[in-house]
Amino acid sequence: MSLDTAALVTKLTEILGPSGIIAETAAMGAYLNEPRKRFHVPALAVVLPKSVAEVQALARFAFENGTPLIPQGGNTGLVGAQVPLKGNEVIVSLARLNGLREINADAGHMTVEAGMILEEAHKIAEAEGAMFPLWIASQGSARIGGVLSSNAGGVNVLAYGNARELCLGVEAVLADGRLYNGLNALKKDNTGYDLKDLLIGAEGTLGIITAATLKLFPLPAGYETAIVNLSSPEKALELFYAMRERAGTRLNAFELVPWIGLDIQTRHGMLDKDPTAGPSPWYALVEVSQPKGAEGGLLQAGLEAAFEANLIDNAVVAESLADRTRMWAFREQMSECQSREGASIKHDVSVPIAAIPRLIAEGSAAAQALVAGIRPVPFGHMGDGNIHFNFSPPVGADDKAFMAGAEPMHDAVYEVVLKLGGSVSAEHGIGQLKTELLKRVKDPVALEMMRAIKQALDPKDILNPGKMLS
Amino acid sequence: MSLDTAALVTKLTEILGPSGIIAETAAMGAYLNEPRKRFHVPALAVVLPKSVAEVQALARFAFENGTPLIPQGGNTGLVGAQVPLKGNEVIVSLARLNGLREINADAGHMTVEAGMILEEAHKIAEAEGAMFPLWIASQGSARIGGVLSSNAGGVNVLAYGNARELCLGVEAVLADGRLYNGLNALKKDNTGYDLKDLLIGAEGTLGIITAATLKLFPLPAGYETAIVNLSSPEKALELFYAMRERAGTRLNAFELVPWIGLDIQTRHGMLDKDPTAGPSPWYALVEVSQPKGAEGGLLQAGLEAAFEANLIDNAVVAESLADRTRMWAFREQMSECQSREGASIKHDVSVPIAAIPRLIAEGSAAAQALVAGIRPVPFGHMGDGNIHFNFSPPVGADDKAFMAGAEPMHDAVYEVVLKLGGSVSAEHGIGQLKTELLKRVKDPVALEMMRAIKQALDPKDILNPGKMLS
Repeated sequence: MSLDTAALVTKLTEILGPSGIIAETAAMGAYLNEPRKRFHVPALAVVLPKSVAEVQALARFAFENGTPLIPQGGNTGLVGAQVPLKGNEVIVSLARLNGLREINADAGHMTVEAGMILEEAHKIAEAEGAMFPLWIASQGSARIGGVLSSNAGGVNVLAYGNARELCLGVEAVLADGRLYNGLNALKKDNTGYDLKDLLIGAEGTLGIITAATLKLFPLPAGYETAIVNLSSPEKALELFYAMRERAGTRLNAFELVPWIGLDIQTRHGMLDKDPTAGPSPWYALVEVSQPKGAEGGLLQAGLEAAFEANLIDNAVVAESLADRTRMWAFREQMSECQSREGASIKHDVSVPIAAIPRLIAEGSAAAQALVAGIRPVPFGHMGDGNIHFNFSPPVGADDKAFMAGAEPMHDAVYEVVLKLGGSVSAEHGIGQLKTELLKRVKDPVALEMMRAIKQALDPKDILNPGKMLS
Repeated sequence: MSLDTAALVTKLTEILGPSGIIAETAAMGAYLNEPRKRFHVPALAVVLPKSVAEVQALARFAFENGTPLIPQGGNTGLVGAQVPLKGNEVIVSLARLNGLREINADAGHMTVEAGMILEEAHKIAEAEGAMFPLWIASQGSARIGGVLSSNAGGVNVLAYGNARELCLGVEAVLADGRLYNGLNALKKDNTGYDLKDLLIGAEGTLGIITAATLKLFPLPAGYETAIVNLSSPEKALELFYAMRERAGTRLNAFELVPWIGLDIQTRHGMLDKDPTAGPSPWYALVEVSQPKGAEGGLLQAGLEAAFEANLIDNAVVAESLADRTRMWAFREQMSECQSREGASIKHDVSVPIAAIPRLIAEGSAAAQALVAGIRPVPFGHMGDGNIHFNFSPPVGADDKAFMAGAEPMHDAVYEVVLKLGGSVSAEHGIGQLKTELLKRVKDPVALEMMRAIKQALDPKDILNPGKMLS
């Protein structure tokens, strides 16, 4: 059976109360308008449960009625997983289910509800003297449920891992309203299949995450941060290996930025002061953390050794918090600065780290073969093998004409990525943007296994239908 | 259709060649006799494929014929996952599929086949200047496929994680012979469900792992190791928190041993020299790793601060490799030394780390209420919340009578564990030993999800039937 929209709204209002539903499309803006403005399908309704029991009641109703549900966190995803595809969906915003259930900073864990904003989780941990080390650009609005459902990464994956590795257990409502209680604060638990990691990164297609137990770490005493001048990605790779050997897991960021990044930011007045030691083909932002008991100077010593070994041309080590902030701003403004230069064709890709120089060389060459004068802007999490391989148009080119060539550009870049054993979506996921691409490039047996699991856990295709697996 | 045994052997011989099958029960000893001598059911045959194609052909045949297959690595598992349950199974030993496919020590990964012995993997990594940091007591015979299928832990989980966290990708043959190719050397790949982590820890019930890409780390320049005298588990916990804050992820082991461990080992002449600073109710073996660029003395400084803060009573820091070896031998002989004192009732459990003192106090009290004079021997990976909560019989007690009381003892200990939010199998898994226990204590929705996934990926119940899920 399927209800008409009015009856559906009535029923949802019964379940969630009048304050728990938005039925007017005009009022849904915040839940529909996603960051890249690519997807424009309205929802039948937006609902805002404020308890796990309400999420369960909602799922039970949806299961009986065949109503597709889209779980949504902060609506910051970049691939459309969290917004409608067909228009017959109900968006389930977890924004009001946002409490802290428990924290034990010494023991290294806290349990929070899915709607908690990531930055709020940071603050709660810090107030207790601990750290939840997952930092992404959207942390001021991204919510924990979405962070987990998309297995978010960010700038400290190198030392602490992706969202998956930072989560000890989850609680989730299944498609028929059953509650999976996988919350725990255990580092070791070999009692069955790894359902936690299956739900994390599933983009809301297997369950609605309602709460999670997150790992906390001791707050470091400080950081040592530098921007290093490098002649090539090959030298950057050698520096990474050398720093990793020297600093071990204290190496918590190794980010690559090409010269054009500094050039664009300078021309558009985005930097109050050049954070680098001067012009250079490539830059690396390198950071080591300093636990309470550690001596300082690890980064400085490593860079001196690298200079003597002819790996690096120059470097600036931050001497103040202001220096560090300026260095990170330079890195973090990389996405934004490109929009000042017109349109941008983007690829969120990863390769085995040793293949990064080839990825950059061959990907740039492939793009230039398609569009003469195209400006490659490859930057990002080099230490994780994850490059945001973006392209700005040739100087003076027309944005629209440039973007019309996006598809062949994607094909050319992904061809290089796949040849190198890489991934066509390192951080941002599949959502609705990349389902066709996934069908083309993913191991076919993996796709069959995914479909079998989806069918087993959500036989009526209630949860985020058409996302990830089309 | 189902073949009689003779026809089955003929068919298996066709697939694997005469050297690839053992059909005489008398010759199967190495594949049937598991470490704890609990399980005594013969197999129909043991087969030893030497290529992935042979594993696939075998699975295709088994799928058509309804033949149950038991994947087996080094036959070191402690819960009977790798040996027969009913006697109608064919054991698939991966021992001959044991090659190195690829290694890149700088980039931090190597791809090995499932039959490679763990110690061999250690040596290969070390020869390239890298480290695969998974150390377990059985590493001289355990094989990578089994290590992954059981999500093995060991003594360095604190810094490096379980087998699951040390593996980047797996290749596996499914129940019907399809090959899942999930090998990759990527730290970030958000293109679908986490099938790798589903196969890891599945005890061979979802697929036969044939190869894996493992993470490698730079070899540390050295280690600082100490044995610390502590008055109580509470003090041990405080010391752990203090050391973790000071050393961060350089803290790579924090193992707890009770006084009785030293007493037994001394009385049975298992120590050439006391590795401790003298008698103490509790000991902790604490170790920090020293990356190439780090200053020494971190552990010493931490212990001095702990002494001043009244957390510890005394400590010995290893001054030589021989000292370190002696300290670790003391810890590693804990399992063996108990057998010198008669029978032992064992529990491999974990709790949130803050609950360890309560686990030990309440678990010991519960056991003593059942058997007056029972000797608790709780030891193990305190830093992971994982205690091997074993009990030796009262002095002079009859082993058989003692072991007859094992079931109520298990119930009493598990009751405490579950009350504290813990796990009844932290490291060793479920196999055939704990299927009934799992049914009793696991979240029922989790069990339903597990059954649905098993049914979806192995609808004919070919792979290790009756294990994990009975």
